[in-house]
This record gives sequence, C-alpha cells and structure tokens, in this order.
Amino acid sequence: MIVVMKPGAAEENIRAVVTYIEQNGLTAHLSKGEEVTIIGMVGDKSRLSTENLAIYKDVDRILPVTESYKLSNKKFHPDSSVVKVGNTVIGPDNLTIMAGPCAVETREQLFAIAHAVKKAGATILRGGAYKPRTSPYSFQGLEEEGLRYMQEAKAETGLSTICEVVSMEAIEAAVKYVDMIQIGARNMQNFILLREAGRSGLPVLLKRGLSATIDEWLNAAEYIMSEGNPNVVLCERGIRTFETATRNTLDLSAVPVLREKTHLPVIVDPSHSTGAYKYVPSMAKAAVASGADGLMIEVHNDPAHALSDGPQSLTFEKFESLTKELAPFCTVVGRTFL
Amino acid sequence: MIVVMKPGAAEENIRAVVTYIEQNGLTAHLSKGEEVTIIGMVGDKSRLSTENLAIYKDVDRILPVTESYKLSNKKFHPDSSVVKVGNTVIGPDNLTIMAGPCAVETREQLFAIAHAVKKAGATILRGGAYKPRTSPYSFQGLEEEGLRYMQEAKAETGLSTICEVVSMEAIEAAVKYVDMIQIGARNMQNFILLREAGRSGLPVLLKRGLSATIDEWLNAAEYIMSEGNPNVVLCERGIRTFETATRNTLDLSAVPVLREKTHLPVIVDPSHSTGAYKYVPSMAKAAVASGADGLMIEVHNDPAHALSDGPQSLTFEKFESLTKELAPFCTVVGRTFL
Amino acid sequence: MIVVMKPGAAEENIRAVVTYIEQNGLTAHLSKGEEVTIIGMVGDKSRLSTENLAIYKDVDRILPVTESYKLSNKKFHPDSSVVKVGNTVIGPDNLTIMAGPCAVETREQLFAIAHAVKKAGATILRGGAYKPRTSPYSFQGLEEEGLRYMQEAKAETGLSTICEVVSMEAIEAAVKYVDMIQIGARNMQNFILLREAGRSGLPVLLKRGLSATIDEWLNAAEYIMSEGNPNVVLCERGIRTFETATRNTLDLSAVPVLREKTHLPVIVDPSHSTGAYKYVPSMAKAAVASGADGLMIEVHNDPAHALSDGPQSLTFEKFESLTKELAPFCTVVGRTFL
Amino acid sequence: MIVVMKPGAAEENIRAVVTYIEQNGLTAHLSKGEEVTIIGMVGDKSRLSTENLAIYKDVDRILPVTESYKLSNKKFHPDSSVVKVGNTVIGPDNLTIMAGPCAVETREQLFAIAHAVKKAGATILRGGAYKPRTSPYSFQGLEEEGLRYMQEAKAETGLSTICEVVSMEAIEAAVKYVDMIQIGARNMQNFILLREAGRSGLPVLLKRGLSATIDEWLNAAEYIMSEGNPNVVLCERGIRTFETATRNTLDLSAVPVLREKTHLPVIVDPSHSTGAYKYVPSMAKAAVASGADGLMIEVHNDPAHALSDGPQSLTFEKFESLTKELAPFCTVVGRTFL
Repeated sequence: MIVVMKPGAAEENIRAVVTYIEQNGLTAHLSKGEEVTIIGMVGDKSRLSTENLAIYKDVDRILPVTESYKLSNKKFHPDSSVVKVGNTVIGPDNLTIMAGPCAVETREQLFAIAHAVKKAGATILRGGAYKPRTSPYSFQGLEEEGLRYMQEAKAETGLSTICEVVSMEAIEAAVKYVDMIQIGARNMQNFILLREAGRSGLPVLLKRGLSATIDEWLNAAEYIMSEGNPNVVLCERGIRTFETATRNTLDLSAVPVLREKTHLPVIVDPSHSTGAYKYVPSMAKAAVASGADGLMIEVHNDPAHALSDGPQSLTFEKFESLTKELAPFCTVVGRTFL
Repeated sequence: MIVVMKPGAAEENIRAVVTYIEQNGLTAHLSKGEEVTIIGMVGDKSRLSTENLAIYKDVDRILPVTESYKLSNKKFHPDSSVVKVGNTVIGPDNLTIMAGPCAVETREQLFAIAHAVKKAGATILRGGAYKPRTSPYSFQGLEEEGLRYMQEAKAETGLSTICEVVSMEAIEAAVKYVDMIQIGARNMQNFILLREAGRSGLPVLLKRGLSATIDEWLNAAEYIMSEGNPNVVLCERGIRTFETATRNTLDLSAVPVLREKTHLPVIVDPSHSTGAYKYVPSMAKAAVASGADGLMIEVHNDPAHALSDGPQSLTFEKFESLTKELAPFCTVVGRTFL
Repeated sequence: MIVVMKPGAAEENIRAVVTYIEQNGLTAHLSKGEEVTIIGMVGDKSRLSTENLAIYKDVDRILPVTESYKLSNKKFHPDSSVVKVGNTVIGPDNLTIMAGPCAVETREQLFAIAHAVKKAGATILRGGAYKPRTSPYSFQGLEEEGLRYMQEAKAETGLSTICEVVSMEAIEAAVKYVDMIQIGARNMQNFILLREAGRSGLPVLLKRGLSATIDEWLNAAEYIMSEGNPNVVLCERGIRTFETATRNTLDLSAVPVLREKTHLPVIVDPSHSTGAYKYVPSMAKAAVASGADGLMIEVHNDPAHALSDGPQSLTFEKFESLTKELAPFCTVVGRTFL
Repeated sequence: MIVVMKPGAAEENIRAVVTYIEQNGLTAHLSKGEEVTIIGMVGDKSRLSTENLAIYKDVDRILPVTESYKLSNKKFHPDSSVVKVGNTVIGPDNLTIMAGPCAVETREQLFAIAHAVKKAGATILRGGAYKPRTSPYSFQGLEEEGLRYMQEAKAETGLSTICEVVSMEAIEAAVKYVDMIQIGARNMQNFILLREAGRSGLPVLLKRGLSATIDEWLNAAEYIMSEGNPNVVLCERGIRTFETATRNTLDLSAVPVLREKTHLPVIVDPSHSTGAYKYVPSMAKAAVASGADGLMIEVHNDPAHALSDGPQSLTFEKFESLTKELAPFCTVVGRTFL
C-alpha cells in the first residue's frame, strides 16, 4: 500500500499518516519528491484498514500494491492446477468439453442429449436443475428431480456431470447426485453460497459475474478455497458492456490475464456470452486458440421448443460438426481431446 | 412480441413462424412492407418461449413489446406506493433519511451513532451485521449480536431500523430484531434470497445490482412481490462503468425513469455510489432535487478507524451540517423532513 | 511515478530499473518491503517514457502519481475560473442557461425559439449549424447560413450565442458569427480540432466524450489551453453504459469530482444525456443541486417536426415552466439566474 | 419502424400517430392486441423523422426495424469484399498481417523494423506519423517526414504501407506517400474526416471507436463509402469497459457479428486492445481462429525506448516467433499467409 500526498502537503499531515501507520505496527518509508511525497508501508497490512487513510488531510490517493487473494494467486503457487471431476480432469494437457441443455426438462430429453454430446466428444454433461431466471414467471427448473436424471444419465453414458447450485439446499442435493457444482454469474458475489460451495467437498466451476473485475473474481475463488477446497475452475462467460449485438461481451483476454495471475484452470462459455447459436463456433475456436482449458456449450435436442435459452443452443448436428472443427485447433495448441 | 423477418424472407419461412405462433394459441398479425415483413403476436405470451423464434429461418430479430414485471409496473398500479417501516413511512410526501454505520462494530459505537443521526434528522437507523466483502479476509460483521444492538438502539432512540441480509439465516434473525431488511447490490439477482425476503413479512429495501438494468431491477422486485409482499423500496446506489474517479457511477436518471415505470418508492445512496465522503453532500442534494423519496447515508463516529467503508462515511458534524443544507431543498420539492 | 516490483524480484532486475531512471536524469527512491520492493521516481518525468518500464523484468506495475494536465489542474490554480461569453459570464456566482434548438432549421424557427428562451431566462442561445450525425443520410445542418441566423438572432434578442464546430472551416466561420464554440462529445479526442479551437480566441465549451474518463477530459481541455486559450467550460452530457432506459447515463458525480480537480466551470446537459424530454426537468434540478455552473437545454418550437433530436426537446411551455421551477433551487445554492 | 402504443391508449391518440405517418406519404398497419396496439410503417422512411413519434401521446416506444447503413450492409451485398492495398489484398482467402511501430521515430528505426516484419511474414508496414495522444505534452509524431520514411521503406522492402490520418492535411500528405490510410478509434465519429477519407481514393482502415456499437461503426463506414469509396476494412481494437486488467476489452465476438452484417473485411488489433505485449500472442491466435481476415500488430526494435506504446510492442524475436505459431492456425482456417 502506498500513500500519495498532495503537492505541498503540510509536514504535520505527513506526520499524521506516518504515525497512523506506525501505531498499527507497520513501517513507513517516506520518499519526498519535488512535487509530491509518497509513503510506502511495510509489514502485515491485515492489521489496519488502510483504505481509511484516504480521509487523512493532504492525502491524495491510496495505491494498493499487493493482491488480496492468496490461495488462488500464481505468485505463491506457480504450477498450473489440475482439477479432477468424476472420471475426467480439467487442466493444462486437455481440452475439456462440458455440454448439455441449459435446463433439464425431462428424463428422455436429458438422455438423448447425453448420448449425443458424448458421441461428439464431450466428457462432462451439463444440465440446469435450479435455474436463476430474470423474471419470476419463467421456468425455474426441475430441482432435485432434475439432479436425479443427471445421475441416471451419468450411469447410462459414463459422462461426468455438473449442475448449477443457487442455495444451500441445492448444494446439499447436488452433493448426492453430481460430480461438480457451478456457481452462476449472478451469484459470483453471493459470499454465503461461495463458502457453502467451499465446504461441499465437490469441485466448483465459478462463473465470472456480469460486471466482475478479474480481481473480484479471484477474490470470489478465494472464498471457496479458504474453506479448504482447492478444486476451483474459472469460467469466462461474457461481461456486461454497452454493445447489444451479443447478449454479453466475451472477454477472451481474460484467459491470458488469468494465466498470469492464477494457477486455476480457465474455461470459456461461448453460449451464454454470445446468446446466439450462430456465433458459438467462432468463439469456441477462438477460446481454444487463446489457451482455454475447456469449453461449456449448450446443446439441445429441439432448440425451438427449449424451455430456456433456445436461441443459443446448438442442435446435435451443429455440436458434432463443431467438435470436428475444434479437433485440429486442439492439435495446434497441444491439448488432448476425445 | 414482434417478429421482424429478414428482407426477402421466403414465404414458407414466414408461414412457419405464423404456424408456431398459432399452435401456441396466439394470434399472428402480418404486416408486409416493401423491405421487410413483421409479425405481431396477440394473446397470452406466457404460453410460449417466444425467444425461441429467434432461430427460425429468415427471422431477423424478436422485439419485446410488454414488460415481464406486473406487480411493480405503474401501468397497472398508477398510484405511488407508501411503505410503512416501524414508526415511519417512505413515500411521496416525505424525505426519509436512513443513516448509520456501514458495519455495526460495538454496542457503544452504534448507540453513539444512533443518537447523532436521530438528532440530525434521520428516522431510520442503518447498520450492517452481515457484511458481504470482496475479500474473505476482511471483517464480515457481528451477525446476530449486531442485530441485537440494532434492536436496543431502536428502544433507546425510537428510530426505526434496517439491516442487510445475505442468507435465509440472516432473514430469520432479522425478523426478530429489525423493521426493514435490505437486499444488497451483489444479491440483487440471488433469486432464492429475494423469494425468502418476500416471505419474511418485513418491508424490503432492494438495492440495484452493480450492472443491473432498470428492467432487471424491477423483475427482481417482482420476485419479492410475487410472494405476497408489496412493501418494496428501490435504492439506486451506483452502477459499474469505466469511470474510476468515483467508486461507482450514481445513475440519478434512474429516479425519473423509475417514477414513470413503477409505483414503488425510490431512495438514493450517495455513500456507496461515490465511495468518498467529500462527494456525498453534492449527490445527496442532487438526489433530493431529482425527486427521490429518501437517502441512505453512511455515518461513523470515527471514520479513520471504521472497520468498513471509512472513506465514504460522514462524521457526526458533517452529517448534521448536510441535513441542515438539505432542509431548504426539501421545502422546494415539497417534502417533509424532520 | 512508482514502479512496483514482483515479489522476489531479482536484485539485478531492481538495479536495471534504477539505472534506467537515473540515466534519464531522475532520482530513484527504493523502498524494500517484506513482500515487494517499490521504486519511486523524483524529477522531471517528461524526460522519459515511464510507461516503458512496464516491460522491464520483474516489474509488476507502474503507478502514476501526478496528473498529466497542468493548466486545467486545480492543484496549481486554486481559484475558480470565470469565463466571459458575449454579454454574460459563466462562473461560480451564476447559473447560466444555454437553450435553443438542436439544429438551426430556418431563420423563423430560430428567431421564435430565441425570443422564447430569452423570455424564460436563458442568457445564451445554442443552435447547431454543423451536425455530426450517426448516419450520413440524416440532416447535417445549414452550415454557414445557420451561423448567420445565429448572429441575427443575437442582434434581435441580445442573447449571447454558442455553436458546435466540427472542422477548421467551421471554426473559421464561427469566429465571424458567434460568441462561443462547442466541441461535441464525438470530437472530444479530435486533437487537431482541439488545438484549432484553442487558437480561435473564442471561449470553448468542451463536452465530455461518450466514454471519456474525467482525466482524459481534462487532458482534452489541456490541448485547448496549451494553445493559450484559458476560456474553457466543461459540459457533462452523459456517458455510455449498459443501461438503455436513457440514451446515456448522466454522470452527475462528475460535477463535485471536477470541482476538486479543476478550476474550470462545469455545466450539465440533461437533454442529450437522457434523450427524452420528460426526464429533463428532474435532471436539470439535480444538476443545479449538485453544484453545476449552468445548464444546456434543447428547446424547439415544434418538437414533433424537429429535424434532429425532437424527442428530447422541450416545448416553449415546458421550458418556461422548468425555469420557474429552477429559480428556488438557484436561491438555495446561492446562484443568480435571470 | 414500429410504434408501440401504451396499454389502454386512447383511440384519438392512435389516430394521431396514423395521421402523422400517412401525411408523410407512408402506410400505417395497425395491429390491436389485448394489451397493446402496435403500428407498423411501410414506405420510404427517409421522408419523416420517425424518432419524433416518441413524443406523441400514448406512444410507449419506437422500435427500428431496418438498419440505416446500406452500402456496407450484407443484406444488399452478400459477397465478401476484397480490398486491394498496394501489392497485396485483404479478404477471405488471406490472413493479412500489418506490423510496425506505433510511431515512426527515425528513418533507421523504421527501416530496421520494416526488414524484420517482412522477414517474419507481414505484408503491410504500419507506422504512425500523426499521433493522437491523450496529453498535449506527449510525442505527437514526425508528420510528413514520417510519411516520407514510410515511402522509402516501401521502396526498400516491397511492403505495402498504412498510416493513420487525423486531419485533411494528413490525408493530403498520405495520398502522396502511402497505400492505405487509417482512421483511429478517437476519430471514428469525426464525420468530416470520414468524408475526406472517402474522397481520398485510398483504401481506408476504420478502427472501432472506444465505445462504438457495431451499428455505429457500420454507419461510420457508410460515411466513407457514400463518398464513392468501397475499399473499407474494419479493425476491432478493443472497447472500453470496467475491466482494467487490459487497456481495453477486445470484443472478438464482433468478428462473427460483422461477418453476418457486412461484406467488408475485418481485422483485429491485439496490441492496442490488450496494451501489454505478453497478451498479444494469445489474442492474435484467437483472432485468427475467430475468422478475422488479418491482424495489426505493433513491433519495435527497442520497446524499452519507444516514444509511444512501448509496453505493448513486440520485439523482433517475439514477433517472428508469433508468426511461426500463427502459421498452423492459418492452415486450419484455410487462409494463406506468407
């Protein structure tokens, strides 16, 4: 943490900042320039609310120097993490494809989709049983019944499974039926849910919040990890911007940025970010090229009659043709797939 | 809902859209222009997933015509709502001031602040007992103990009380101790929490999410109201933009926009939106002038040692001088205060 | 400028940064903490491209300490500026109202509007003769003919006049006919135009770019001022965000932020920011309460037939009733108007 | 254009809208639903300012149906355009790499870079002679002298050349020396400059504005094309968002969106969008995978001493290794390069 004083700051006001720092057991380093004085702090910063220094007289700005996340920080854990999910692993050597319907609708629908995505190369089946919807009048999911179908689909196909959770009850149910839980974008800063997910013992896919900075996202991962659960995978799914041609703006630069800041695996969801099936293949390929460890893609047997997110779902044919097109990109980036 | 077909759309593709609409029990109105054909739908749209039409051949775009929120919609409830909170009411004739610390830290601190804000004109005491913090290593609140102090502060001063809730447990506790609960920005689309808040029986202050559109915000209110709880107050607290000079960008235009779209009361939080005590008075005055029904302001006995949000908290002196400056604005806008 | 080194930075890499700084004639101050080393720079920073230090080995981040704008910076010019425009002045004692049509359409139209806005209290007549329009097929303005009508309207009513300029030719014409020129949002970083405006000798109203930070805006003002023209007035007119209920999001917090950072007058445009006449009065009042030095408001004799921006224009009646409503707010904030 | 009336709109107000439409020579189509009435317009909409209908009584909203850009619109020109630039072409069969320094600094520097980028596979040399800089105190370019060096570098290496223009003077000079001109992000809505670029006869690279929607961008292209110049290439270079980990947020989804909306070639600039050399390779690969027709990459002989944008420039070694890594991606997407 660095305190920048205003030009011409009074000596007594510089003193006051130094005193505050020292009273909190830290050491202050003064650096007096021609225009401004800056004061660096050395020591255990968790002891003081450094942001409060902003209100001291003649203080111009407070500049943070170190990140507040530790367990997810690559600076302290340089090797890339590998996360085991059921029979498969997410990490630097693979391209993991998670695919399935936005919402589990019926047992038959889910089985049909599970067989199709397995055939095309997916290793994890996704399916929503608890749906956070903007309007209370939209379909909200089959809940525990949907999770049971996921378990049956796993038994039938051998695919690993992932399901979004939105509450403690959903986590308790998910633990019984699926291999990985997902925290959705709208709950990325639902800190209670993050802690519960941390305690669940299951690997967690943490989607980026619609307006979350990468730093906030890593702090959210820290909530899960600080409960003793190191198995966190990050999922970029688009951020909110002024552009309306796509549902959200996929921030693919987040992939190399995260690669530098964290050791956690990173996957990309081209379905929710674009909101339109026709843009999914381009963004899926771009994600692989950017270095992502995997993809999450919505696939539906009959998008025109899907209860949720039909317009962004791929048909079986389109999904199969996409995975075929992805294969040579995997070869180029040196990842195994299928 | 209106379907816009592409220029030169094939007759059979127009037919297919009309058939889909009619099979769902709705009526389709065709309007063929020189360049494009548009198809309007009339009837009960909840019967079909109209968004799915986006994937029909030659469909260019789907345009929504009616809002999905009903209970909060002014079109169906033209009179402004008044929400009773303990001994006071929030509504068009008053300017309600909610003030207090970001976080309840000790009984003594809370009592000192409660007396000070009451003296200066606040009618509702705010105080956080459950703090959603970006980092898991920051102070997270006193929880139920903090709520008890709020109850005691109410008994001591006669102020009504409000407290943020972040979980079902927090709601259950809050019901015992405070007059109003608050859903924070990060939980605005935590739909489980919204439903629980709806069932709590307490009036609910619903803060706008950091990147929530006004329509999404009203849909979130709808979640609370659809559980039978009409006592919702909206709180504008800044949205996330590219500008970093303030913590968030206070969207004051939301006040007149909401006034047109909804009958619910609207208050403004100039503390969290600006993130700096020095900008709070200007924005508080602007909020009153814009037509807001109230303000939520952070006040602390010793901002330099606050455990949370010190930089944006007003001292007792600054708060008292602000309420004195606000009084003539209230007179101009015709609202009672004090 | 402060250089933050990575944790565990090699001694030789720290040395390399220090050497680069010293070779450029500056002094480096080292501050070694337990986790990180920071290096402050003292001296004339214009001598080196400090941003380049970002690519030195083990450099984590570069943190700027001082602003790059000088002439517009309040730190070096603490007193509020007053800008003379024709017969009137913009500054801390007045509330200046600029009003008129988005585009000058005919001589008759402009005269009718000029009389109406003068009667209602405006002191400066605005009117666009060069219109930057999103589509090349929209009405682009009367150009020099429009400026001549502005000059005649001034002679007729005694109002001072302002007109947007979009090119060197427009500036050359404007100098002959009007009292103040305006640089529009889309040209805020058209640096050639800024320099020309600086050399014109006329006072300049500089609108904020749609996605300009406050720092970039002040740097744009610096372009004008560095040509020897101190008469710059800033105009907040809304920034681009994800919210679509208003055309742009009026960032009223910019008013107190600018008050702290610059000595230049600040006015607010509630017409372009909201894009809807019905929201203009609320935002005009809020702007006055926030401390703005003036308002720019679009007024039209017949908004339904306006060639540009009809939906956000006030009729004569609405404008007159707005200025009546603004008067008591001016009294409260201690500004003269009318 | 569709007019949506409010629920319960009075018959006379519906009439008034229809009358306005018909008086302007268009045909109105009424569609009365249970809740709302919608009115479609058929005919030549350029005859009326349809936006003005927003202020008619009981009008809820105006919904645009057709795009305002025509020449750049794929609906009317389905085949992909190919743009010839000096000795090379930009279009669907190639991957065109433009590379070079942000700013031309000296003849020697430019020649060294030109040889290096040619060797590594670039076909177009970029180099800024007129630099739009945020601060007036930063290096602003060598101007015409820089253009002359570009011409000489072309003669020496056979590379085609591109240079940014910021004024009519710059265009006049550029026409004499280079093969293609560039309109930068800050000038994307400098409509005067767009028209001049259209008249120059040279192919134009049009960068996306920092907060420009894709529709506004295509309208800007329309300004150039409506002057009779069909040779426009679009360049995505990042948009402004709340995320600060990268200088801007590269919106790669714009590539498939543009592919659907326009026939113009699309290239991507991973240097300006990320602002950091270390993120450039990932984003360059992702751009190729997403379907871009080319890349614009900053390369410098000595980034640590570059006068502009050093941190995002690749060294010769890094650029050469990047083009080697890009080659197999080109093979996969079926584009020729080298």
